[in-house]
Amino acid sequence: MTSKAIDPKTLNNIIRRGVTEIIVEEEFVRLLQEGKPLRLKMGFDPSRPDIHLGHAVGLRKLRQLQDLGHQVILIVGDWTAQIGDPSGQSATRQMLTAEEVRANAETYLQQFFKVIDKERAQTVWQSEWFGNFTLANVFELTRRFTVAQFLARDDFAKRFRAQQPIAITELLYPLLQAYDSVQIQSDVEFGGTDQMFNILVGRDLQGMMGQRQQQCFFMPLLVGTDGVQKMSKSLGNYIGVDEPPNEMYGKVMSIPDSLMMDYFELLTDVPDEELAEMRRGMDAESVNPMEFKKRLALDIVAQFHGGMAAAKTAEASFERTVQRGETPEEIVEVSIVSPTDLSRFLVAASLATSRAQSKRLIAQGAVDINGSTQKDEGAVIKQDDIVRVGRHGFVKVKIVNADAS
Amino acid sequence: MTSKAIDPKTLNNIIRRGVTEIIVEEEFVRLLQEGKPLRLKMGFDPSRPDIHLGHAVGLRKLRQLQDLGHQVILIVGDWTAQIGDPSGQSATRQMLTAEEVRANAETYLQQFFKVIDKERAQTVWQSEWFGNFTLANVFELTRRFTVAQFLARDDFAKRFRAQQPIAITELLYPLLQAYDSVQIQSDVEFGGTDQMFNILVGRDLQGMMGQRQQQCFFMPLLVGTDGVQKMSKSLGNYIGVDEPPNEMYGKVMSIPDSLMMDYFELLTDVPDEELAEMRRGMDAESVNPMEFKKRLALDIVAQFHGGMAAAKTAEASFERTVQRGETPEEIVEVSIVSPTDLSRFLVAASLATSRAQSKRLIAQGAVDINGSTQKDEGAVIKQDDIVRVGRHGFVKVKIVNADAS
Repeated sequence: MTSKAIDPKTLNNIIRRGVTEIIVEEEFVRLLQEGKPLRLKMGFDPSRPDIHLGHAVGLRKLRQLQDLGHQVILIVGDWTAQIGDPSGQSATRQMLTAEEVRANAETYLQQFFKVIDKERAQTVWQSEWFGNFTLANVFELTRRFTVAQFLARDDFAKRFRAQQPIAITELLYPLLQAYDSVQIQSDVEFGGTDQMFNILVGRDLQGMMGQRQQQCFFMPLLVGTDGVQKMSKSLGNYIGVDEPPNEMYGKVMSIPDSLMMDYFELLTDVPDEELAEMRRGMDAESVNPMEFKKRLALDIVAQFHGGMAAAKTAEASFERTVQRGETPEEIVEVSIVSPTDLSRFLVAASLATSRAQSKRLIAQGAVDINGSTQKDEGAVIKQDDIVRVGRHGFVKVKIVNADAS
Repeated sequence: MTSKAIDPKTLNNIIRRGVTEIIVEEEFVRLLQEGKPLRLKMGFDPSRPDIHLGHAVGLRKLRQLQDLGHQVILIVGDWTAQIGDPSGQSATRQMLTAEEVRANAETYLQQFFKVIDKERAQTVWQSEWFGNFTLANVFELTRRFTVAQFLARDDFAKRFRAQQPIAITELLYPLLQAYDSVQIQSDVEFGGTDQMFNILVGRDLQGMMGQRQQQCFFMPLLVGTDGVQKMSKSLGNYIGVDEPPNEMYGKVMSIPDSLMMDYFELLTDVPDEELAEMRRGMDAESVNPMEFKKRLALDIVAQFHGGMAAAKTAEASFERTVQRGETPEEIVEVSIVSPTDLSRFLVAASLATSRAQSKRLIAQGAVDINGSTQKDEGAVIKQDDIVRVGRHGFVKVKIVNADAS
């Protein structure tokens, strides 16, 4: 398999749109134009199984390259997850059990392939190399870098100055991630700007170990729905790619107007020229930003929920419940055949995409029945119940079998 | 086997003489008096195969405890030697090959058993546990300590402040040494005060891993022949236990008078009362310190060269060549049966204790024949040659077979 030739517009789209920096850009472009399939490294931290739009920025970039014939190597970080990467974090993370890692990997992959082309992706586990790692192998990595080099990493430096504990194990994290690049012979690694240190260690280590050095592709951090901090599950300002259409639509609609154009640029394929025109319209106040934002929400929901149909339904629901402020009595009815339990109902009503997600939402207290939070996934749903998920999903139950009134 | 009961004088000798600190002294005394054989940990760094009198201070303490029935566990640090301990050093050390480690261990053991009772000693290699160490095992150690804790170690702190490189590998050194204690279930570890950090990490780790914590026995650092710095091979102020009698005798005689009583205390069994009396005599200037120093030199040479005979010969040689400044023509004759090569001759003449040592001395340029340095170990020794080793050993060759003139 060889990759396709690249026209200047596509090239520009790849190396400019939604890209902060490429190290080394000229080499990356040369490799792209050489036409051989490149090995695109993507690491997955199984302690964070849920993908949100912040991650999607990078995944969309990978997909662009896949569409040119390049190959994604997804590394399941089952060993680094045992340490926990403190990049941008303030404390050492809890270790995961093997069982949790496996379950989280399943959750992740199901979301991952909403963006990534499964045909041009390969999944490998760190266990394949770290499972047999010896103490001599550890020395081989640790002897090449100094404590001071690593303590210079932004988050380490802050914690060290603040006298917060940094476990010695944590210094191993960037080394292991770097060794992944050596092991899979990565040609390009992708990450947010907060991953710059780790990704460059990978490049260095490949060079030290006699390998061609990977190109490093840094992307901006997507700001979350609060309009202030980077999107992050722990900050609660995220939009998960696995959230139900209504929820996702509503969350996109809730972002500040000031973020909208960044979201268009990083999360849609709307062409640059059109974006420029939208910006001009907004500056001249000749357009209603709400209409642009609805286009954004439609586009994003359609991407993650199999097309326009689901997106349009979500839009209709949003218009009814939020824009027109209608009461629950006036909301969509969902017909079911017989009384059923809550977790099954949410799936049937498209308020959740799977039983697992349904159960998570219920456990998190995100589900109301008739105005009261319901945490029992087995609660029975009856005729005329009003079921609400989060801020944006309301439905009224209609039971259509003979026993119902 | 149970250890012997301890009279108060012996106990005092063990816990006071030549001891800087015991952590925790009361527990150590209780363990001693319990009477069960204790496991005494002694680590050997195979990158430093030669034992000098500075090391002998600790080995003599071990021997005292062996004589009460306790067991020495000697750990050959074939893994830690791959890192090199920077305690008190200023730079990362070169790695050794497996072959060098093996050869050095042989050299070491031959010297070690000049002090240690072979019958109550067991030798183990770190390979027995580190050879199968996994990355998970490494995490198990590294997650328990922080970077800041380790950078607080004196020599690390100095290098870090001075912006000298500290390889990440070096942080693993104290952890591996500590894990040795866990692995051999050490009851007591011994070391100079410069080993305090490492030895206490061992004690901590045992506790963290649910084991009874070792007692820690810290001994003063012996000052070298220059009277200023701690004895160290690299500073050239050392007296090796494997040096030939004349050389050893002469070096002891070269120490400043001010060090003499410390040497008596740390390196001989001359009773405390006698030492007190000697001190009084010196303070009153009623004695000649030279006589005391000759007693010290005799005692030390006798310890390491199988008794008084060799010591007396060394003394006689010293008196002739140094004290009376006699010329080489007046020195001891050594009779050999036929011309032989230089390396064999040095052993026959008791100027070296082994062929290996003999070859080392020649290679170092420490050997003269008729006033010229001779670096060829195969040089043939002839009638009337004057052979000199270092500053103190002169002999004249006499060949007694029929062919000699």
